[in-house]
Amino acid sequence: MIDPNLHFDSVTDTDRLDLDMALHLTSEEIRRNLTGAPYVIRNLTRHLAKAGGKNIRARALLACSAGSDGKTDRRAVLTASAIELLHLATLVHDDIIDNAVLRRGIDTLHKKFGEKNAVLCGDFLFCLAFQLVGRIKPPEERNPLPENLLPAYMTEICLGALREIRNNHNYKLSERAYFGIISGKTAALFEATFYAGFLLSGEPEDNKGGYIDLGKCMGIVFQLSDDCFDYEATKKTMKKPVLSDFSQGVVTLPLIYAIKKDPSLLERIESGISPQDIKQAVRAAGGLAYTHLKIDRYHKKALKIIHSLTVPEEKKVRLINLLDMAAGNMLRTSGSALS
Amino acid sequence: MIDPNLHFDSVTDTDRLDLDMALHLTSEEIRRNLTGAPYVIRNLTRHLAKAGGKNIRARALLACSAGSDGKTDRRAVLTASAIELLHLATLVHDDIIDNAVLRRGIDTLHKKFGEKNAVLCGDFLFCLAFQLVGRIKPPEERNPLPENLLPAYMTEICLGALREIRNNHNYKLSERAYFGIISGKTAALFEATFYAGFLLSGEPEDNKGGYIDLGKCMGIVFQLSDDCFDYEATKKTMKKPVLSDFSQGVVTLPLIYAIKKDPSLLERIESGISPQDIKQAVRAAGGLAYTHLKIDRYHKKALKIIHSLTVPEEKKVRLINLLDMAAGNMLRTSGSALS
Repeated sequence: MIDPNLHFDSVTDTDRLDLDMALHLTSEEIRRNLTGAPYVIRNLTRHLAKAGGKNIRARALLACSAGSDGKTDRRAVLTASAIELLHLATLVHDDIIDNAVLRRGIDTLHKKFGEKNAVLCGDFLFCLAFQLVGRIKPPEERNPLPENLLPAYMTEICLGALREIRNNHNYKLSERAYFGIISGKTAALFEATFYAGFLLSGEPEDNKGGYIDLGKCMGIVFQLSDDCFDYEATKKTMKKPVLSDFSQGVVTLPLIYAIKKDPSLLERIESGISPQDIKQAVRAAGGLAYTHLKIDRYHKKALKIIHSLTVPEEKKVRLINLLDMAAGNMLRTSGSALS
Repeated sequence: MIDPNLHFDSVTDTDRLDLDMALHLTSEEIRRNLTGAPYVIRNLTRHLAKAGGKNIRARALLACSAGSDGKTDRRAVLTASAIELLHLATLVHDDIIDNAVLRRGIDTLHKKFGEKNAVLCGDFLFCLAFQLVGRIKPPEERNPLPENLLPAYMTEICLGALREIRNNHNYKLSERAYFGIISGKTAALFEATFYAGFLLSGEPEDNKGGYIDLGKCMGIVFQLSDDCFDYEATKKTMKKPVLSDFSQGVVTLPLIYAIKKDPSLLERIESGISPQDIKQAVRAAGGLAYTHLKIDRYHKKALKIIHSLTVPEEKKVRLINLLDMAAGNMLRTSGSALS
């Protein structure tokens, strides 16, 4: 049982933390940063704090950072918090760009507080995240440190988002170009998360490539599952509008495949197809089945990587659980928010 | 004479660079990052590269970083480049927020490429800057490193910008609140610049407070001079629209003082005063004279700090030159762009 009053600052750098405790401290750290932000921005960050995410990136970082004792430390908690705040910053800016109205079940920031405030709040969260990782004391000579690698991955994420908006309403987007987009937009932060977790784990250099590849695979599994969910979900199970990708002109794999198989769909889209009809058409043309096949392929690849890592059995189990979470097998069925 | 083909990467960490060479390499590094950005963003960053700034923050960082030999090194060039890119990122987002159309004599990014692209380009520049400082190898045990302190100052800048937009069109803004805004909006990055420069200089800890205070003073001198310039300049001397602050609802010291002395001005503003009339009214009520008095006070304070530093005479002269540049005595008269 975790003491609910346990405060992150009461933990020292050398204390070993079990993973549940570390996750609790990470949520606390994120919450504390959001609810205790400076006065001028507090009403915005408190609004963000209302919506809980499932913190899959934080869970991944902590799981990867575990040492041979199955435990982690304060540096991993800081890095995990920073990664979730970075992710939150990108969501705030993405919602401006997509003009989305609902996120994690509540109004988006720019809808509630206006665009100017939302741009700056995103910037604030970016800086806050880099500030958090800056507090990490390097424990050994290992290079690079998480704070050195995060910005590089973050630029990849910006570029992925740019590629996405360039291809807004581009219904002729190729599958290859689509994978280029999601490699940046989603997989880059997963890759950074797994890489940073590895750096904190103290594991031998031989594992490095495995963690990086695993992060990328898991990011792709996560994104493809999210893409399917957009065509499969009902408003009840999803805390954001159903078909939000499609209605915002974001072209994803189920649609790309469906158009390829049934080119007449293109005309129907251009003349304004109904949400119900596009969902049915994508399913009928095999868009969902094809995407699930791809998910399965990356899932298998990820499993293979996990088994190849030189880590204790217990760690492998945790990584497999994460993979299932990314594929939506665990939390989505319980109706939790996507993010 | 600087070899124009000299490339930054040909310099090693331990090479000592004279300050002119370091400034040349900094400009090169910034240019290279902007013109050689990844394909998807290159047309945006190349547009930004067209407009030259006067790089006052880079000059300040390099000047502060000079050692007892009057020279600096590669780490300072990287930090100076990062600070200018951070500044550029804030300008890109500020222009979206202010809906400005002209900056440094050319179209603003969001005007030319749209808001979505501009938000992401700003984010990209933020990350790029943090990536550059992440390349710095810590030379000694001194803590914090520039990459640790920059994010903290950047959050101050976001908060200052938020305070500014909250007070848009607030013609009852107090002088005190105004100084609170510019401390974040402008002075924080100057403070960070001087602090980082000091850290790289290897000078004794006794100088630290002096550099930090000097940065803050110089930032205030720079901002107040900019505020006056908005009411004094003609379109010919300024590469952005004259009275852009006033027309965007940004309330600055000359106006605050003028309204305090002549409360009837408030009514005239609310009923839509002409640009010519507001310029004349602010001057007539002593708004410009009062602001120049304040500039003079901070200028004197800065001079006093410079003289108190334990540094070679040559370094003091360089810092005084920077102060003059901040006050607009050097570059503005030659018609160079404000930034």
